[in-house]
Amino acid sequence: MNAAVKFEDLQVGFDIPARPGMDEADIQTPCLVLDLDALERNIKKMGDYARAHGMRHRVHGKMHKSVDVAKLQERLGGAVGVCCQKVSEAEVFVRGGIKDVLVSNQVRDPQKIDRLAQLPKLGSSVIVCVDDPANVDELSQAAQKHGTELQVLVEIDCGAGRCGVTTSEAVVEIAKAVEQAPNLRFSGIQAYQGAMQHLDSYEARKQKLDIAIAQVKDAVAALKAEGLEAELVSGGGTGSYYFESDSGVYNELQCGSYAFMDADYGRILDQDGKRIDQGEWENAFFILTQVMSHAKPDKAICDAGLKAQSVDSGLPVIYGRDDVEYIKCSDEHGVIADPDGVLKVGDKLRLVPGHCDPTANVHDWYVGVRNGKAETLWPVSARGKAY
Amino acid sequence: MNAAVKFEDLQVGFDIPARPGMDEADIQTPCLVLDLDALERNIKKMGDYARAHGMRHRVHGKMHKSVDVAKLQERLGGAVGVCCQKVSEAEVFVRGGIKDVLVSNQVRDPQKIDRLAQLPKLGSSVIVCVDDPANVDELSQAAQKHGTELQVLVEIDCGAGRCGVTTSEAVVEIAKAVEQAPNLRFSGIQAYQGAMQHLDSYEARKQKLDIAIAQVKDAVAALKAEGLEAELVSGGGTGSYYFESDSGVYNELQCGSYAFMDADYGRILDQDGKRIDQGEWENAFFILTQVMSHAKPDKAICDAGLKAQSVDSGLPVIYGRDDVEYIKCSDEHGVIADPDGVLKVGDKLRLVPGHCDPTANVHDWYVGVRNGKAETLWPVSARGKAY
Repeated sequence: MNAAVKFEDLQVGFDIPARPGMDEADIQTPCLVLDLDALERNIKKMGDYARAHGMRHRVHGKMHKSVDVAKLQERLGGAVGVCCQKVSEAEVFVRGGIKDVLVSNQVRDPQKIDRLAQLPKLGSSVIVCVDDPANVDELSQAAQKHGTELQVLVEIDCGAGRCGVTTSEAVVEIAKAVEQAPNLRFSGIQAYQGAMQHLDSYEARKQKLDIAIAQVKDAVAALKAEGLEAELVSGGGTGSYYFESDSGVYNELQCGSYAFMDADYGRILDQDGKRIDQGEWENAFFILTQVMSHAKPDKAICDAGLKAQSVDSGLPVIYGRDDVEYIKCSDEHGVIADPDGVLKVGDKLRLVPGHCDPTANVHDWYVGVRNGKAETLWPVSARGKAY
Repeated sequence: MNAAVKFEDLQVGFDIPARPGMDEADIQTPCLVLDLDALERNIKKMGDYARAHGMRHRVHGKMHKSVDVAKLQERLGGAVGVCCQKVSEAEVFVRGGIKDVLVSNQVRDPQKIDRLAQLPKLGSSVIVCVDDPANVDELSQAAQKHGTELQVLVEIDCGAGRCGVTTSEAVVEIAKAVEQAPNLRFSGIQAYQGAMQHLDSYEARKQKLDIAIAQVKDAVAALKAEGLEAELVSGGGTGSYYFESDSGVYNELQCGSYAFMDADYGRILDQDGKRIDQGEWENAFFILTQVMSHAKPDKAICDAGLKAQSVDSGLPVIYGRDDVEYIKCSDEHGVIADPDGVLKVGDKLRLVPGHCDPTANVHDWYVGVRNGKAETLWPVSARGKAY
């Protein structure tokens, strides 16, 4: 062998799963596939809903981590901007041209605060959440240092049990501190009830949201009593957006998963007891996988395992098939029960992952498909942006 | 704001969690941290063991996906090369200078086979597994096309329930076909029992391995009866390597997790009933995380959630602490029970992830730390290489 041969000399393609124009059958697996027609319908539908209900829709960019999908949501769904969870994600979205970005999370590390405070220089509105009065001065100092303005939402923990204050007094205390802090602007309330989104029953979700809405109304009234107005009252997810929209107090939605759908969300039920992936939203997001071994007659082994997805919310479901079932997942393999031996090596299957957000986060590319062709290739722009 | 300001104009560092020489306290979270002293001790220890037992050690590169760690394993642990699970990983290791690379998996897609068959041109030995006679001709055609040689191991399913044949007759059939196929060389047997590695009890693991060893011995004897020699008999993981080493039939180990350790492996017991992370191996691999909210007195919220790790094998464990416990994981948050309120915002903690392999796969960098400083920064070279 000639050790002077370089990798670049080989007939090996770029490190991408598909080239635009390629037949869907030639896409390299495992990879993420977006059904562009279904994606566009989901985006338009939620946009129409928000418009009809007088709600702003700030799409959750932490779900897809894609500048391209966010821009599609602006263009087809009238999205007002993006929310995300990390400063590094906000950097990606601002650099990508999103003009209104909310970090729907606390930012406490000095280096991260310093980075965040510089982002408005690029011409985007930047909003951040606060749940601790001590954070107000940190943010203000950084914004003063860089000559920028940061908008602030006070975060209420309305049931998710993570970040956020739990009393209206605490909301008012932080809002007042923000109002008095140079280079900060109090912009309203962040109140996302994350824990209830995946409850199957519509009524169970409604009960949880009723509590959250009461909490938010109390906070808004307490602010008003002090002469403070919550310009934005932001929250709402794929399992709850109709409750926030009808609340009379929220004015901004933060839905993410509706655009892609996943197996776990798909299982929750609408008001009529129907799964939300059977009418309300379409599956637009898949892991394309290939059968790579069928040495046992009743088991097919595919090439999508733990490194092609997150199984925190359960195993993936094989789309459109009830004759075969994905039953086990190891690092690089999926075991598919194939009792009738209908699959063969080389067959490709679409998997609906259990949980779309962390599944997108392990891939570098979305392959957008339409009419049997790879139409486009979008980077998962903020993949791995966790800082 | 001046929209002509560019991101490059901002005082924002490179997109890395640390710079070499930086104090450990300044490392940006969440990120992967390697305790270099512990890592080096683990690597030396396994290398010494393999040498003392006359075993080759082909380290499993799919665990760390790092050329730098693989080279450390060659230098300090006498590793003979690397195994990995995907052609795209093999490309990374060969390009990185690893001279002996086994894809311990089936390669069936025509494009992947074509890529694999070109890799020997770069001067490395390339070995691949086969469990289907139909794959032999596919590999041979591609190797002929590129004028290269591929070595082949026949894969036996010795209990993992994934790829691999289950009878010695099938092993012999494939080995013969390989021997007759131009540009292929039959090199032996792949027999990794993955399913038993995480059984807590040493005796339970031994029982499973005894079955595997009997299966492998039978196959080796069947090959010999046909005049075929298995030059390599390869397998063995962190929960079993002593069984393969004492088997009299295996001659190559494929351990991976021993170098890093994780919470799930740490819980398995050695022959004396002691956890293997309490003496046999050291935790060298951590997610560094920071407390970002403590709005509720008994709960601290940290910045490492599902996108900083895989929880397929359980939640992470907070290293060296029994006063606080990581109890819940959502996309970007970890909830830490802090009953005595000992944590405060900004505190950094080391998490031992449940499962090291898929956790490494969501990060771009390893920060190697020693004596309180970030000493080195290694890319997770094959991160996301799933094709």
